[in-house]
Amino acid sequence: MTLDLEWLDDGGITAAAGFQASGIHAGLKRNKKDLALVFSDVPGSAAGVFTTNRVKGAPLLVSIPRVRAGRLQAIVANSGNANTCNGPGGVEDALAMGRRTAEVLNIPEEMVLVASTGVIGQRLPLTLIGAGIPEAAARLSRAGGSDAAEAIMTTDTVPKQAALRLALAPGEPPVTIGGMAKGSGMIHPNMATMLAFISTDAAVAAADLQKALRLAVDRTFNMISVDGDTSTNDMVVVLANGRSGAPVLLPGTDRFDRFREALTALCARLARAIARDGEGATRLLEVRVKGARTEHDARLAARAITASSLVKTAVFGNDANWGRIICAAGYSGAAFDPERFDIYLGDLPVARDGQGLDFDERRASQLLARDPVVVTVDFREGDGTATAWGCDFSYDYVRINADYRT
Amino acid sequence: MTLDLEWLDDGGITAAAGFQASGIHAGLKRNKKDLALVFSDVPGSAAGVFTTNRVKGAPLLVSIPRVRAGRLQAIVANSGNANTCNGPGGVEDALAMGRRTAEVLNIPEEMVLVASTGVIGQRLPLTLIGAGIPEAAARLSRAGGSDAAEAIMTTDTVPKQAALRLALAPGEPPVTIGGMAKGSGMIHPNMATMLAFISTDAAVAAADLQKALRLAVDRTFNMISVDGDTSTNDMVVVLANGRSGAPVLLPGTDRFDRFREALTALCARLARAIARDGEGATRLLEVRVKGARTEHDARLAARAITASSLVKTAVFGNDANWGRIICAAGYSGAAFDPERFDIYLGDLPVARDGQGLDFDERRASQLLARDPVVVTVDFREGDGTATAWGCDFSYDYVRINADYRT
Repeated sequence: MTLDLEWLDDGGITAAAGFQASGIHAGLKRNKKDLALVFSDVPGSAAGVFTTNRVKGAPLLVSIPRVRAGRLQAIVANSGNANTCNGPGGVEDALAMGRRTAEVLNIPEEMVLVASTGVIGQRLPLTLIGAGIPEAAARLSRAGGSDAAEAIMTTDTVPKQAALRLALAPGEPPVTIGGMAKGSGMIHPNMATMLAFISTDAAVAAADLQKALRLAVDRTFNMISVDGDTSTNDMVVVLANGRSGAPVLLPGTDRFDRFREALTALCARLARAIARDGEGATRLLEVRVKGARTEHDARLAARAITASSLVKTAVFGNDANWGRIICAAGYSGAAFDPERFDIYLGDLPVARDGQGLDFDERRASQLLARDPVVVTVDFREGDGTATAWGCDFSYDYVRINADYRT
Repeated sequence: MTLDLEWLDDGGITAAAGFQASGIHAGLKRNKKDLALVFSDVPGSAAGVFTTNRVKGAPLLVSIPRVRAGRLQAIVANSGNANTCNGPGGVEDALAMGRRTAEVLNIPEEMVLVASTGVIGQRLPLTLIGAGIPEAAARLSRAGGSDAAEAIMTTDTVPKQAALRLALAPGEPPVTIGGMAKGSGMIHPNMATMLAFISTDAAVAAADLQKALRLAVDRTFNMISVDGDTSTNDMVVVLANGRSGAPVLLPGTDRFDRFREALTALCARLARAIARDGEGATRLLEVRVKGARTEHDARLAARAITASSLVKTAVFGNDANWGRIICAAGYSGAAFDPERFDIYLGDLPVARDGQGLDFDERRASQLLARDPVVVTVDFREGDGTATAWGCDFSYDYVRINADYRT
């Protein structure tokens, strides 16, 4: 399917019709924006996927039932504090944060999604947040997407946002999908990932939106890894307000498939941005697995390779140590014949039929110094393919994480 | 069970009666010993556990059936080259390495265990090894255990060996168990680990020895992690030659249980030595999980915590970030109630009932600066306990692995 979609430069969570946003400094962090607000002028269909970590942040306990109910109109999110492992008091704080937002925006409490990211195990400074919400509401605007994207950052070095527009069928109004994400460490999503918020003016029922999001997340956010740690607060939520004027999307139609592919493309861009901005990363690592017996096998192998500390340090050092690549595939749980695989760095073959080739080491080092670094593993057994994204592993990852709290 | 066992200082693979060893420089590495030989003056019962990586080194393909046959008399092992991913030629090389050893020692080929560790995907320099084997055989001695332990090192900074002696029943000759191990990176054993060779003069049938080893490995080598990467060449092999004069060990007896516990104690010492010497490690991390619903849950949680890059960097930075500890337990797959756990750093409680305590940060930093660092997580739900070992994550891990091959 060729989508003919148009990427909107500098577009983000407010690119779609009817969405406004803001990001302000409420005081949780020293000098940086730390409170984001997103508002749709009409309630919309909601869908979301959430962390599989047994320990879930209080905001997730509050927000998951609201997403399941299928309708949302606003998102309030803070950085600097994850509001996780705070017992019943943490849940009360998350509820209060949502309630204050609802009051200020004059919408029902259940229409507010609450999210938090930051350090675990410290109570939320509710006074600061309570004072920040009216200010954030006052600053809501169509131009506020970048501020919101900034306000959800933690160790991220750049804000992450993207937007695209496409016509789902000839002669009808185009729909827009935009989004923002944050994440740099504790990134090894399983079913969901860090924070990502997506807005669209397409019209789609919540249950159908959920199906489209599930597929998109499995192929994008669930295929990135920075450090193998699955966070307690991961969530990807999409809000569709129907304001484009395009007809309602119905599963099983070409229009729906186009929307789903476009949503997947948007998620892929945000996911790659998270991997590229992994803590201490100097470049993006893209691992393509093909020829696997099943897509599941391809996914297992691709993810294990991007998550391997040994592969990641070798990429950092421009060292064409392909033995580590196949070692990671070997313990990934993927089924393959160890005497049949081929491996490429960029377009350079380094192993064939399960054995090393006498390749040009200098050329290999050059390919490993590129951004992104592209590794392809071909099992030559079936049609299963998958792509995963990660990053290299540098001294700075250790520096950043050795004293995160202090 | 109190074992009343005696640790033998400086003892290793030759501590048990009838074993000799040597370690020489055959030329695979620049200036270091790289070829180890172990010889028992009589054939003994053999047992072993091997990597679960789908990609297995050629020496494992040759050695696994020999261990399964239950009898061995010699071990030949090289460092500097893993002889893995070399196709049929690699298997021929491993067979040739064993055959040459058998000729020189004048024993049947099937009595020789072959092992290799080092870089993946380069053919074994067979001429060097072929010339080294007679030299190693000429140097076999009761005092050669330390040389052998040195010759199997790769990025290890210290040789790892241990030996103990105990009487299995009053009035009978004591038995001795000794061993050596190597491993520093690519350490996240699953069913087995890097190279560990154990010798004993106890008399025990191969099948019974296998049972004792399986249990010992599950509680020791399978509970360590350095970097989450399960190697292609892991093996733990034990050789029992019966030379102590103590009666044959029979399962279901108190004597057998004592032997098994002593074997586990020896494996634990070697496993801890591997974790402590993890690439770039500055100290050992010991994670004790108790109060879990089952031992399986405790094992999952303990291993995930020791394997977490975020926990490991926090330990390196003396940062009491217990949120990362419970986050790792949360994604480990272990079942527990997120509102019930307690966490201790050393003897200092830092979280209770699933929430953070207002603890003394300076005292916590001091406890994290100790070697070993001891973390205890109590789920307060059942009787399941497990201990896992890892190490902190320092800049040197990145330095060591960024250009391992060059």
